[in-house]
Amino acid sequence: MIRGTTRLIAHLGYPIDPVKAPMIYNPYFEHHRIDAAVVPMGVEARDFAAVLGAVFRLTNIVGALVTMPHKVTTASLLDVCSDEVRTAGSCNAVRRREDGSLVGDMFDGAGFVLGLRRKGFVCEGARCLVVGAGGVGSAIAAALAGAGVKSIALFDLDEAASKGLRRRLADRYPGLEVTFTEPDPAGHDLVVNATPLGMHAEDALPLDASKLAPSTFVGEVVMKQEITPLLRAARGIGCRTQVGTDMLFEQIPLYLKFFGLRDAGPEELRALARLA
Amino acid sequence: MIRGTTRLIAHLGYPIDPVKAPMIYNPYFEHHRIDAAVVPMGVEARDFAAVLGAVFRLTNIVGALVTMPHKVTTASLLDVCSDEVRTAGSCNAVRRREDGSLVGDMFDGAGFVLGLRRKGFVCEGARCLVVGAGGVGSAIAAALAGAGVKSIALFDLDEAASKGLRRRLADRYPGLEVTFTEPDPAGHDLVVNATPLGMHAEDALPLDASKLAPSTFVGEVVMKQEITPLLRAARGIGCRTQVGTDMLFEQIPLYLKFFGLRDAGPEELRALARLA
Repeated sequence: MIRGTTRLIAHLGYPIDPVKAPMIYNPYFEHHRIDAAVVPMGVEARDFAAVLGAVFRLTNIVGALVTMPHKVTTASLLDVCSDEVRTAGSCNAVRRREDGSLVGDMFDGAGFVLGLRRKGFVCEGARCLVVGAGGVGSAIAAALAGAGVKSIALFDLDEAASKGLRRRLADRYPGLEVTFTEPDPAGHDLVVNATPLGMHAEDALPLDASKLAPSTFVGEVVMKQEITPLLRAARGIGCRTQVGTDMLFEQIPLYLKFFGLRDAGPEELRALARLA
Repeated sequence: MIRGTTRLIAHLGYPIDPVKAPMIYNPYFEHHRIDAAVVPMGVEARDFAAVLGAVFRLTNIVGALVTMPHKVTTASLLDVCSDEVRTAGSCNAVRRREDGSLVGDMFDGAGFVLGLRRKGFVCEGARCLVVGAGGVGSAIAAALAGAGVKSIALFDLDEAASKGLRRRLADRYPGLEVTFTEPDPAGHDLVVNATPLGMHAEDALPLDASKLAPSTFVGEVVMKQEITPLLRAARGIGCRTQVGTDMLFEQIPLYLKFFGLRDAGPEELRALARLA
Protein backbone atom coordinates (compact mmCIF):
# COMPACT_ATOMS: atom_id res chain seq x y z
CA MET A 1 0.00 0.00 0.00
CA ILE A 2 1.17 3.50 -0.79
CA ARG A 3 2.02 5.64 2.25
CA GLY A 4 3.72 8.96 2.79
CA THR A 5 6.97 7.08 3.24
CA THR A 6 6.72 5.22 -0.08
CA ARG A 7 9.62 5.75 -2.46
CA LEU A 8 8.69 6.23 -6.10
CA ILE A 9 9.88 4.77 -9.36
CA ALA A 10 8.43 6.90 -12.16
CA HIS A 11 7.42 4.98 -15.27
CA LEU A 12 7.62 7.54 -18.08
CA GLY A 13 6.12 6.91 -21.53
CA TYR A 14 3.39 7.80 -23.96
CA PRO A 15 0.88 6.34 -24.37
CA ILE A 16 1.20 5.04 -20.83
CA ASP A 17 -1.95 2.90 -20.66
CA PRO A 18 -0.43 -0.32 -22.07
CA VAL A 19 2.58 -0.54 -19.74
CA LYS A 20 2.89 -3.69 -17.65
CA ALA A 21 5.69 -2.84 -15.23
CA PRO A 22 3.48 -1.55 -12.37
CA MET A 23 1.69 -4.91 -12.23
CA ILE A 24 5.03 -6.73 -11.97
CA TYR A 25 7.07 -4.53 -9.65
CA ASN A 26 4.33 -3.49 -7.23
CA PRO A 27 3.09 -6.96 -6.24
CA TYR A 28 6.75 -7.93 -5.80
CA PHE A 29 7.37 -4.91 -3.54
CA GLU A 30 4.20 -5.66 -1.60
CA HIS A 31 5.12 -9.30 -1.13
CA HIS A 32 8.52 -8.39 0.33
CA ARG A 33 7.25 -5.32 2.24
CA ILE A 34 9.51 -3.04 0.21
CA ASP A 35 8.06 0.45 0.66
CA ALA A 36 8.34 1.48 -3.00
CA ALA A 37 5.97 1.77 -5.96
CA VAL A 38 6.20 2.04 -9.72
CA VAL A 39 3.93 4.90 -10.80
CA PRO A 40 2.96 5.25 -14.47
CA MET A 41 3.33 8.81 -15.70
CA GLY A 42 2.14 9.61 -19.21
CA VAL A 43 4.26 12.33 -20.80
CA GLU A 44 4.37 13.55 -24.38
CA ALA A 45 7.63 14.17 -26.20
CA ARG A 46 7.42 17.96 -25.99
CA ASP A 47 7.20 17.82 -22.19
CA PHE A 48 9.66 15.04 -21.54
CA ALA A 49 12.82 16.95 -20.61
CA ALA A 50 10.96 19.18 -18.15
CA VAL A 51 9.12 16.26 -16.57
CA LEU A 52 12.27 14.13 -16.24
CA GLY A 53 14.02 17.03 -14.53
CA ALA A 54 11.09 17.61 -12.17
CA VAL A 55 10.71 13.93 -11.30
CA PHE A 56 14.30 13.85 -10.11
CA ARG A 57 13.68 16.84 -7.85
CA LEU A 58 11.20 14.76 -5.83
CA THR A 59 12.64 13.92 -2.43
CA ASN A 60 11.15 10.40 -2.51
CA ILE A 61 12.24 9.41 -6.02
CA VAL A 62 14.28 6.24 -6.48
CA GLY A 63 14.55 6.32 -10.24
CA ALA A 64 12.75 6.15 -13.55
CA LEU A 65 11.78 3.44 -16.00
CA VAL A 66 11.69 5.04 -19.44
CA THR A 67 9.68 3.62 -22.29
CA MET A 68 8.38 4.61 -25.73
CA PRO A 69 8.90 7.21 -27.17
CA HIS A 70 11.50 8.67 -24.82
CA LYS A 71 14.38 6.18 -24.73
CA VAL A 72 16.53 8.00 -27.30
CA THR A 73 15.85 11.45 -25.83
CA THR A 74 16.76 10.20 -22.36
CA ALA A 75 20.23 9.19 -23.55
CA SER A 76 20.91 12.87 -24.29
CA LEU A 77 19.75 14.08 -20.86
CA LEU A 78 22.14 12.07 -18.70
CA ASP A 79 25.25 13.15 -16.85
CA VAL A 80 26.73 9.65 -16.78
CA CYS A 81 25.82 6.77 -19.06
CA SER A 82 26.82 3.13 -19.43
CA ASP A 83 28.51 1.60 -22.48
CA GLU A 84 25.14 0.04 -23.33
CA VAL A 85 23.52 3.48 -23.46
CA ARG A 86 26.33 4.81 -25.61
CA THR A 87 26.15 1.95 -28.12
CA ALA A 88 22.36 1.72 -28.20
CA GLY A 89 21.96 5.50 -28.24
CA SER A 90 19.01 4.99 -25.92
CA CYS A 91 18.30 4.61 -22.22
CA ASN A 92 15.50 3.01 -20.21
CA ALA A 93 16.74 3.30 -16.62
CA VAL A 94 17.68 6.49 -14.76
CA ARG A 95 18.72 7.14 -11.20
CA ARG A 96 20.10 10.14 -9.38
CA ARG A 97 23.36 10.19 -7.50
CA GLU A 98 23.79 12.06 -4.22
CA ASP A 99 25.31 15.04 -6.04
CA GLY A 100 22.15 15.35 -8.16
CA SER A 101 23.67 14.00 -11.37
CA LEU A 102 21.62 11.57 -13.47
CA VAL A 103 23.00 8.14 -14.29
CA GLY A 104 21.47 6.06 -17.06
CA ASP A 105 21.57 2.49 -18.23
CA MET A 106 19.79 0.42 -20.87
CA PHE A 107 18.47 -3.04 -20.07
CA ASP A 108 16.18 -3.89 -23.01
CA GLY A 109 18.96 -5.53 -24.96
CA ALA A 110 20.34 -7.49 -22.01
CA GLY A 111 16.81 -8.63 -21.11
CA PHE A 112 16.12 -9.71 -24.69
CA VAL A 113 19.35 -11.72 -24.92
CA LEU A 114 18.89 -13.31 -21.49
CA GLY A 115 15.48 -14.49 -22.71
CA LEU A 116 16.95 -15.95 -25.90
CA ARG A 117 19.61 -17.82 -23.96
CA ARG A 118 17.09 -19.17 -21.47
CA LYS A 119 15.28 -20.69 -24.49
CA GLY A 120 18.48 -22.27 -25.77
CA PHE A 121 19.10 -19.93 -28.67
CA VAL A 122 22.81 -19.72 -29.45
CA CYS A 123 23.77 -16.11 -30.12
CA GLU A 124 27.40 -16.78 -31.03
CA GLY A 125 27.72 -16.70 -34.81
CA ALA A 126 24.01 -16.03 -35.47
CA ARG A 127 22.75 -14.03 -38.44
CA CYS A 128 20.17 -11.53 -37.17
CA LEU A 129 17.56 -9.24 -38.67
CA VAL A 130 16.43 -6.37 -36.46
CA VAL A 131 13.39 -4.51 -37.79
CA GLY A 132 13.21 -1.13 -36.08
CA ALA A 133 16.28 0.89 -35.07
CA GLY A 134 14.60 3.07 -32.43
CA GLY A 135 15.27 2.93 -28.70
CA VAL A 136 14.53 -0.73 -28.13
CA GLY A 137 15.81 -2.00 -31.49
CA SER A 138 19.12 -0.24 -30.98
CA ALA A 139 19.48 -1.75 -27.54
CA ILE A 140 18.71 -5.24 -28.82
CA ALA A 141 21.17 -4.86 -31.69
CA ALA A 142 23.86 -3.67 -29.27
CA ALA A 143 23.24 -6.59 -26.90
CA LEU A 144 23.25 -9.11 -29.76
CA ALA A 145 26.57 -7.68 -30.88
CA GLY A 146 27.90 -8.02 -27.35
CA ALA A 147 26.66 -11.62 -27.27
CA GLY A 148 28.77 -12.53 -30.30
CA VAL A 149 26.37 -12.68 -33.24
CA LYS A 150 27.95 -12.82 -36.70
CA SER A 151 25.83 -10.24 -38.50
CA ILE A 152 23.01 -7.79 -37.94
CA ALA A 153 20.82 -6.61 -40.82
CA LEU A 154 18.93 -3.43 -39.92
CA PHE A 155 15.71 -2.06 -41.30
CA ASP A 156 14.02 1.17 -40.25
CA LEU A 157 11.89 3.60 -42.26
CA ASP A 158 14.03 6.28 -40.66
CA GLU A 159 17.38 5.80 -42.45
CA ALA A 160 19.19 8.19 -40.14
CA ALA A 161 18.32 5.96 -37.19
CA SER A 162 19.75 2.88 -38.94
CA LYS A 163 22.88 4.74 -40.02
CA GLY A 164 23.53 6.12 -36.55
CA LEU A 165 23.13 2.69 -35.04
CA ARG A 166 25.45 1.09 -37.59
CA ARG A 167 28.12 3.67 -36.85
CA ARG A 168 27.89 3.10 -33.08
CA LEU A 169 27.95 -0.69 -33.52
CA ALA A 170 30.97 -0.48 -35.82
CA ASP A 171 32.84 1.67 -33.31
CA ARG A 172 32.43 -0.83 -30.51
CA TYR A 173 32.31 -4.14 -32.45
CA PRO A 174 34.63 -3.77 -35.46
CA GLY A 175 34.31 -7.48 -36.40
CA LEU A 176 30.52 -7.37 -36.68
CA GLU A 177 28.82 -7.29 -40.10
CA VAL A 178 26.13 -4.60 -40.10
CA THR A 179 24.05 -4.11 -43.23
CA PHE A 180 20.92 -2.24 -44.24
CA THR A 181 18.19 -4.41 -45.67
CA GLU A 182 14.52 -4.82 -46.46
CA PRO A 183 12.36 -6.48 -43.78
CA ASP A 184 12.90 -9.89 -45.36
CA PRO A 185 13.54 -12.68 -42.87
CA ALA A 186 15.04 -15.15 -45.34
CA GLY A 187 18.47 -16.43 -44.38
CA HIS A 188 18.41 -15.22 -40.77
CA ASP A 189 18.74 -17.31 -37.62
CA LEU A 190 17.03 -14.64 -35.54
CA VAL A 191 14.40 -12.12 -36.59
CA VAL A 192 13.34 -9.37 -34.18
CA ASN A 193 10.37 -7.06 -34.39
CA ALA A 194 11.51 -3.93 -32.58
CA THR A 195 8.79 -1.68 -34.05
CA PRO A 196 5.45 -0.86 -32.40
CA LEU A 197 3.63 -2.78 -35.18
CA GLY A 198 1.35 -5.29 -33.49
CA MET A 199 0.09 -2.95 -30.77
CA HIS A 200 -3.06 -2.15 -32.73
CA ALA A 201 -5.44 -4.54 -34.47
CA GLU A 202 -5.13 -2.71 -37.78
CA ASP A 203 -1.31 -2.75 -37.85
CA ALA A 204 0.52 -4.28 -40.83
CA LEU A 205 3.00 -7.05 -40.07
CA PRO A 206 6.48 -5.60 -39.51
CA LEU A 207 8.01 -8.05 -41.99
CA ASP A 208 7.04 -10.62 -44.62
CA ALA A 209 6.17 -13.55 -42.36
CA SER A 210 5.57 -15.88 -45.30
CA LYS A 211 9.35 -15.94 -45.85
CA LEU A 212 10.12 -17.22 -42.34
CA ALA A 213 11.88 -20.57 -42.17
CA PRO A 214 10.94 -22.98 -39.35
CA SER A 215 14.53 -22.84 -38.10
CA THR A 216 14.35 -19.09 -37.55
CA PHE A 217 13.82 -17.78 -34.02
CA VAL A 218 11.38 -14.85 -33.88
CA GLY A 219 11.52 -12.32 -31.06
CA GLU A 220 8.93 -9.63 -30.34
CA VAL A 221 9.03 -6.42 -28.29
CA VAL A 222 5.31 -5.57 -28.40
CA MET A 223 3.68 -6.37 -25.03
CA LYS A 224 0.20 -4.95 -25.42
CA GLN A 225 -0.93 -8.39 -26.52
CA GLU A 226 1.02 -11.52 -25.64
CA ILE A 227 0.73 -13.21 -29.05
CA THR A 228 1.00 -10.64 -31.80
CA PRO A 229 0.01 -11.45 -35.42
CA LEU A 230 3.73 -11.84 -36.21
CA LEU A 231 4.23 -14.36 -33.40
CA ARG A 232 1.08 -16.22 -34.43
CA ALA A 233 2.33 -16.49 -38.02
CA ALA A 234 5.80 -17.55 -36.83
CA ARG A 235 4.40 -20.27 -34.57
CA GLY A 236 2.21 -21.48 -37.43
CA ILE A 237 5.36 -22.00 -39.47
CA GLY A 238 7.05 -23.81 -36.57
CA CYS A 239 9.47 -21.09 -35.46
CA ARG A 240 10.57 -20.80 -31.86
CA THR A 241 9.48 -17.45 -30.45
CA GLN A 242 9.97 -15.00 -27.60
CA VAL A 243 7.12 -12.74 -26.45
CA GLY A 244 7.53 -9.09 -25.48
CA THR A 245 7.06 -9.62 -21.76
CA ASP A 246 9.95 -12.12 -21.70
CA MET A 247 12.31 -9.21 -22.38
CA LEU A 248 10.58 -7.31 -19.59
CA PHE A 249 10.77 -10.04 -16.93
CA GLU A 250 14.42 -10.77 -17.75
CA GLN A 251 15.52 -7.18 -17.30
CA ILE A 252 13.71 -6.37 -14.06
CA PRO A 253 16.41 -8.03 -11.93
CA LEU A 254 18.89 -5.68 -13.61
CA TYR A 255 16.71 -2.67 -12.80
CA LEU A 256 16.33 -3.74 -9.17
CA LYS A 257 20.11 -3.95 -8.78
CA PHE A 258 20.51 -0.58 -10.56
CA PHE A 259 18.07 1.04 -8.11
CA GLY A 260 19.73 -0.61 -5.12
CA LEU A 261 16.59 -2.60 -4.25
CA ARG A 262 16.28 -6.28 -3.26
CA ASP A 263 16.61 -8.22 -6.50
CA ALA A 264 14.94 -11.41 -7.63
CA GLY A 265 14.97 -13.82 -10.54
CA PRO A 266 12.44 -13.61 -13.37
CA GLU A 267 10.65 -16.73 -12.06
CA GLU A 268 9.80 -15.11 -8.75
CA LEU A 269 8.71 -11.92 -10.52
CA ARG A 270 6.46 -13.91 -12.84
CA ALA A 271 4.92 -15.83 -9.96
CA LEU A 272 4.01 -12.63 -8.11
CA ALA A 273 2.96 -10.50 -11.12
CA ARG A 274 -0.71 -9.65 -11.56
CA LEU A 275 -0.88 -8.97 -15.28
CA ALA A 276 -4.49 -10.05 -15.79
CA MET B 1 -3.72 -1.88 -7.81
CA ILE B 2 -1.77 0.57 -9.92
CA ARG B 3 -1.90 -0.14 -13.66
CA GLY B 4 -0.86 1.76 -16.78
CA THR B 5 -4.39 3.11 -16.98
CA THR B 6 -4.39 4.49 -13.42
CA ARG B 7 -5.05 8.21 -13.12
CA LEU B 8 -2.90 10.07 -10.64
CA ILE B 9 -3.55 12.55 -7.87
CA ALA B 10 -0.21 14.03 -6.86
CA HIS B 11 0.15 14.74 -3.14
CA LEU B 12 2.75 17.50 -2.95
CA GLY B 13 4.43 18.50 0.31
CA TYR B 14 7.62 18.48 2.34
CA PRO B 15 8.36 16.56 4.42
CA ILE B 16 6.06 14.05 2.72
CA ASP B 17 6.52 11.08 5.08
CA PRO B 18 3.81 12.03 7.61
CA VAL B 19 0.93 12.51 5.12
CA LYS B 20 -2.15 10.38 5.63
CA ALA B 21 -4.16 11.02 2.47
CA PRO B 22 -2.82 8.05 0.43
CA MET B 23 -4.07 5.65 3.13
CA ILE B 24 -7.54 7.19 2.98
CA TYR B 25 -8.11 7.80 -0.73
CA ASN B 26 -6.45 4.67 -2.09
CA PRO B 27 -8.41 2.08 -0.10
CA TYR B 28 -11.57 3.99 -1.04
CA PHE B 29 -10.63 3.93 -4.75
CA GLU B 30 -9.78 0.25 -4.49
CA HIS B 31 -13.05 -0.60 -2.79
CA HIS B 32 -15.08 1.11 -5.53
CA ARG B 33 -12.81 -0.01 -8.36
CA ILE B 34 -11.98 3.58 -9.25
CA ASP B 35 -8.78 3.41 -11.30
CA ALA B 36 -7.01 6.30 -9.57
CA ALA B 37 -4.30 6.67 -6.93
CA VAL B 38 -2.98 9.35 -4.62
CA VAL B 39 0.81 9.39 -4.95
CA PRO B 40 2.92 11.21 -2.35
CA MET B 41 5.58 13.40 -3.95
CA GLY B 42 8.05 15.12 -1.67
CA VAL B 43 9.14 18.48 -3.05
CA GLU B 44 11.12 21.25 -1.43
CA ALA B 45 10.08 24.90 -1.69
CA ARG B 46 12.76 25.83 -4.23
CA ASP B 47 11.53 23.17 -6.66
CA PHE B 48 7.81 23.55 -6.13
CA ALA B 49 6.82 25.75 -9.08
CA ALA B 50 8.72 23.57 -11.57
CA VAL B 51 7.33 20.35 -10.13
CA LEU B 52 3.75 21.63 -10.05
CA GLY B 53 4.04 22.65 -13.69
CA ALA B 54 5.51 19.31 -14.69
CA VAL B 55 2.91 17.29 -12.76
CA PHE B 56 0.17 18.99 -14.75
CA ARG B 57 1.88 18.04 -18.01
CA LEU B 58 1.33 14.38 -17.20
CA THR B 59 -1.33 12.89 -19.45
CA ASN B 60 -2.78 10.79 -16.62
CA ILE B 61 -2.97 13.49 -13.96
CA VAL B 62 -6.32 14.19 -12.29
CA GLY B 63 -5.16 16.85 -9.88
CA ALA B 64 -3.02 17.66 -6.90
CA LEU B 65 -3.44 17.73 -3.15
CA VAL B 66 -1.11 20.40 -1.80
CA THR B 67 0.15 20.43 1.75
CA MET B 68 2.83 22.05 3.89
CA PRO B 69 4.78 24.20 3.05
CA HIS B 70 3.34 24.92 -0.41
CA LYS B 71 -0.25 26.08 0.16
CA VAL B 72 0.51 29.80 -0.01
CA THR B 73 2.84 29.48 -3.01
CA THR B 74 0.22 27.45 -4.87
CA ALA B 75 -2.29 30.29 -4.61
CA SER B 76 0.08 32.43 -6.69
CA LEU B 77 0.51 29.78 -9.42
CA LEU B 78 -3.16 29.39 -10.42
CA ASP B 79 -5.01 30.70 -13.43
CA VAL B 80 -8.40 30.54 -11.73
CA CYS B 81 -9.07 30.48 -8.00
CA SER B 82 -12.09 30.25 -5.75
CA ASP B 83 -13.19 32.91 -3.26
CA GLU B 84 -11.85 30.64 -0.53
CA VAL B 85 -8.38 30.69 -2.10
CA ARG B 86 -8.52 34.46 -2.46
CA THR B 87 -9.53 35.05 1.16
CA ALA B 88 -7.26 32.41 2.65
CA GLY B 89 -4.38 33.36 0.38
CA SER B 90 -3.64 29.67 0.16
CA CYS B 91 -4.68 26.64 -1.88
CA ASN B 92 -4.68 22.90 -1.25
CA ALA B 93 -6.49 21.52 -4.32
CA VAL B 94 -5.50 21.97 -7.96
CA ARG B 95 -6.92 20.57 -11.17
CA ARG B 96 -6.31 21.31 -14.83
CA ARG B 97 -9.01 22.36 -17.25
CA GLU B 98 -9.11 21.13 -20.84
CA ASP B 99 -7.40 24.33 -22.05
CA GLY B 100 -4.47 23.60 -19.72
CA SER B 101 -5.27 26.30 -17.18
CA LEU B 102 -4.93 25.48 -13.48
CA VAL B 103 -7.92 25.88 -11.18
CA GLY B 104 -7.44 25.94 -7.42
CA ASP B 105 -9.59 25.64 -4.34
CA MET B 106 -8.99 25.46 -0.61
CA PHE B 107 -10.82 22.92 1.53
CA ASP B 108 -8.96 22.97 4.87
CA GLY B 109 -11.24 25.65 6.30
CA ALA B 110 -14.45 24.06 5.08
CA GLY B 111 -13.31 20.67 6.41
CA PHE B 112 -12.40 22.17 9.77
CA VAL B 113 -15.78 23.92 10.12
CA LEU B 114 -17.75 20.86 8.96
CA GLY B 115 -16.00 18.93 11.72
CA LEU B 116 -16.86 21.56 14.34
CA ARG B 117 -20.52 21.54 13.32
CA ARG B 118 -20.68 17.76 13.37
CA LYS B 119 -19.56 17.97 16.99
CA GLY B 120 -22.27 20.51 17.81
CA PHE B 121 -20.07 23.60 18.05
CA VAL B 122 -22.03 26.72 17.15
CA CYS B 123 -19.91 28.96 14.96
CA GLU B 124 -22.37 31.84 14.77
CA GLY B 125 -21.26 34.56 17.17
CA ALA B 126 -18.23 32.64 18.47
CA ARG B 127 -15.02 34.32 19.65
CA CYS B 128 -12.08 32.52 18.07
CA LEU B 129 -8.31 32.42 18.51
CA VAL B 130 -6.34 31.12 15.54
CA VAL B 131 -2.66 30.47 16.28
CA GLY B 132 -0.77 30.31 13.00
CA ALA B 133 -1.65 32.41 9.97
CA GLY B 134 0.03 30.25 7.34
CA GLY B 135 -1.75 28.24 4.66
CA VAL B 136 -4.00 26.17 6.88
CA GLY B 137 -4.57 28.84 9.55
CA SER B 138 -5.62 31.35 6.92
CA ALA B 139 -8.07 28.87 5.43
CA ILE B 140 -9.57 28.07 8.83
CA ALA B 141 -9.90 31.77 9.67
CA ALA B 142 -11.60 32.42 6.33
CA ALA B 143 -14.03 29.53 6.80
CA LEU B 144 -14.83 30.59 10.39
CA ALA B 145 -15.57 34.07 9.08
CA GLY B 146 -17.84 32.59 6.43
CA ALA B 147 -19.58 30.51 9.11
CA GLY B 148 -20.54 33.65 11.04
CA VAL B 149 -18.14 33.87 13.97
CA LYS B 150 -18.06 37.16 15.86
CA SER B 151 -14.33 37.68 16.18
CA ILE B 152 -11.01 36.18 15.21
CA ALA B 153 -7.83 36.89 17.14
CA LEU B 154 -4.72 36.03 15.16
CA PHE B 155 -1.24 35.14 16.31
CA ASP B 156 1.72 34.33 14.11
CA LEU B 157 5.42 34.93 14.64
CA ASP B 158 5.38 36.23 11.05
CA GLU B 159 3.53 39.54 11.44
CA ALA B 160 3.26 40.05 7.71
CA ALA B 161 1.27 36.82 7.42
CA SER B 162 -1.20 37.97 10.11
CA LYS B 163 -1.54 41.41 8.57
CA GLY B 164 -2.16 40.06 5.08
CA LEU B 165 -4.78 37.69 6.42
CA ARG B 166 -6.52 40.45 8.39
CA ARG B 167 -6.66 42.62 5.28
CA ARG B 168 -8.18 39.84 3.19
CA LEU B 169 -10.70 38.95 5.89
CA ALA B 170 -11.69 42.60 6.28
CA ASP B 171 -12.25 42.94 2.53
CA ARG B 172 -14.67 40.04 2.41
CA TYR B 173 -16.24 40.17 5.89
CA PRO B 174 -16.45 43.84 6.90
CA GLY B 175 -18.51 43.06 10.05
CA LEU B 176 -15.94 40.66 11.48
CA GLU B 177 -13.65 41.73 14.32
CA VAL B 178 -10.07 40.74 13.53
CA THR B 179 -7.34 41.50 16.07
CA PHE B 180 -3.72 40.59 16.64
CA THR B 181 -3.00 38.95 19.96
CA GLU B 182 -0.70 36.77 22.01
CA PRO B 183 -1.36 33.03 21.99
CA ASP B 184 -3.54 33.34 25.11
CA PRO B 185 -6.73 31.27 24.97
CA ALA B 186 -8.57 33.15 27.75
CA GLY B 187 -11.97 34.48 26.72
CA HIS B 188 -12.31 32.46 23.49
CA ASP B 189 -15.02 29.97 22.58
CA LEU B 190 -12.77 28.31 20.03
CA VAL B 191 -9.00 27.96 20.01
CA VAL B 192 -7.22 26.54 16.99
CA ASN B 193 -3.65 25.36 16.67
CA ALA B 194 -2.80 25.97 13.02
CA THR B 195 0.97 25.76 13.50
CA PRO B 196 3.12 22.64 12.99
CA LEU B 197 3.88 22.59 16.75
CA GLY B 198 3.02 19.14 18.00
CA MET B 199 4.53 17.23 15.09
CA HIS B 200 7.75 16.59 16.99
CA ALA B 201 8.20 15.32 20.54
CA GLU B 202 10.39 18.26 21.54
CA ASP B 203 7.94 20.94 20.27
CA ALA B 204 6.72 23.65 22.63
CA LEU B 205 2.95 23.99 23.06
CA PRO B 206 1.55 26.50 20.53
CA LEU B 207 -0.31 28.36 23.30
CA ASP B 208 -0.58 28.60 27.07
CA ALA B 209 -2.82 25.60 27.73
CA SER B 210 -3.08 26.37 31.46
CA LYS B 211 -5.34 29.30 30.56
CA LEU B 212 -7.88 27.14 28.70
CA ALA B 213 -11.39 27.18 30.15
CA PRO B 214 -13.40 23.92 30.10
CA SER B 215 -16.02 25.64 27.92
CA THR B 216 -13.47 26.36 25.19
CA PHE B 217 -13.42 24.10 22.13
CA VAL B 218 -9.88 23.25 20.99
CA GLY B 219 -9.15 22.33 17.37
CA GLU B 220 -5.88 20.92 16.06
CA VAL B 221 -4.40 20.66 12.55
CA VAL B 222 -1.40 18.44 13.34
CA MET B 223 -2.05 14.89 12.13
CA LYS B 224 1.28 13.18 12.69
CA GLN B 225 0.00 12.01 16.05
CA GLU B 226 -3.71 11.80 16.79
CA ILE B 227 -3.56 13.28 20.32
CA THR B 228 -1.03 16.09 20.43
CA PRO B 229 0.25 17.50 23.75
CA LEU B 230 -2.14 20.45 23.27
CA LEU B 231 -5.14 18.16 22.82
CA ARG B 232 -4.07 16.07 25.80
CA ALA B 233 -3.87 19.19 27.98
CA ALA B 234 -7.22 20.46 26.67
CA ARG B 235 -8.96 17.15 27.36
CA GLY B 236 -7.45 17.13 30.83
CA ILE B 237 -9.13 20.46 31.48
CA GLY B 238 -12.43 19.16 30.11
CA CYS B 239 -12.47 20.97 26.75
CA ARG B 240 -14.18 19.48 23.74
CA THR B 241 -11.62 18.87 20.99
CA GLN B 242 -11.19 18.15 17.31
CA VAL B 243 -8.20 16.15 16.04
CA GLY B 244 -6.25 16.96 12.87
CA THR B 245 -7.56 14.05 10.85
CA ASP B 246 -11.16 15.20 11.42
CA MET B 247 -10.41 18.20 9.19
CA LEU B 248 -8.92 15.80 6.67
CA PHE B 249 -11.83 13.34 6.54
CA GLU B 250 -14.39 16.14 6.32
CA GLN B 251 -12.73 17.76 3.32
CA ILE B 252 -12.12 14.67 1.21
CA PRO B 253 -15.70 14.62 -0.10
CA LEU B 254 -15.09 18.18 -1.33
CA TYR B 255 -11.90 17.11 -3.06
CA LEU B 256 -13.61 14.14 -4.72
CA LYS B 257 -16.30 16.44 -6.15
CA PHE B 258 -13.64 18.95 -7.24
CA PHE B 259 -11.77 16.19 -9.13
CA GLY B 260 -15.00 14.87 -10.67
CA LEU B 261 -14.67 11.51 -8.89
CA ARG B 262 -17.34 9.48 -7.08
CA ASP B 263 -17.82 11.18 -3.74
CA ALA B 264 -18.59 9.73 -0.34
CA GLY B 265 -19.29 10.88 3.20
CA PRO B 266 -16.57 11.04 5.86
CA GLU B 267 -18.03 7.95 7.60
CA GLU B 268 -17.49 5.74 4.57
CA LEU B 269 -13.99 7.15 4.10
CA ARG B 270 -13.14 6.47 7.74
CA ALA B 271 -14.45 2.92 7.55
CA LEU B 272 -12.29 2.11 4.53
CA ALA B 273 -9.13 4.01 5.55
CA ARG B 274 -6.05 2.05 6.55
CA LEU B 275 -4.23 4.54 8.73
CA ALA B 276 -2.51 2.03 10.99
